[in-house]
Amino acid sequence: MAYVLQVDFKHEGPFGDEMAAAFSDLAKSINDEKGFMWKIWTENRETNEAGGIYMFETKTDAENYLTMHTKRLNGFGITNVHAKLFEINEALTTITHGPLQ
Amino acid sequence: MAYVLQVDFKHEGPFGDEMAAAFSDLAKSINDEKGFMWKIWTENRETNEAGGIYMFETKTDAENYLTMHTKRLNGFGITNVHAKLFEINEALTTITHGPLQ
Repeated sequence: MAYVLQVDFKHEGPFGDEMAAAFSDLAKSINDEKGFMWKIWTENRETNEAGGIYMFETKTDAENYLTMHTKRLNGFGITNVHAKLFEINEALTTITHGPLQ
Repeated sequence: MAYVLQVDFKHEGPFGDEMAAAFSDLAKSINDEKGFMWKIWTENRETNEAGGIYMFETKTDAENYLTMHTKRLNGFGITNVHAKLFEINEALTTITHGPLQ
């Protein structure tokens, strides 16, 4: 049963191409995290927010990543991290073409 | 440029198979919303929360859906709807295998 982790926080930039350049090495490293399946990188320069939508193989993998990631964000000076962890309703998600893998 | 909409709210159930049975017709109808690409249906029976992660073709499509969906949730008696709309950083998302279509 895959789990979704949604994370967002205040972020003053960089956004867009500058954000991609700043975090491409970090992005590559995330692919090696235990149980990691995929991440959508989110950003909103109007509200000064950024974050991610992640899919993990298990709840424990998602929880362990969130613990590590929150400490990492704190190290960047980001302390107001909002995170929610959810099971996926696979039957409904299949109807609406949601990516499950 | 696709947009991500993340929505969550307090939900006392049903969850799982019962939730799927209750909302399958609604799920089918969401496929017909303007600019809709996909939805992952989220649920957490420990925290009594549910919601969704959506991908829309444009920001306007996502905003219009959120306006309609919030009214619909209010009609179900759900008033504490948390929603955030984000652009996608496509370069970083490509590195981490995030679904963009």
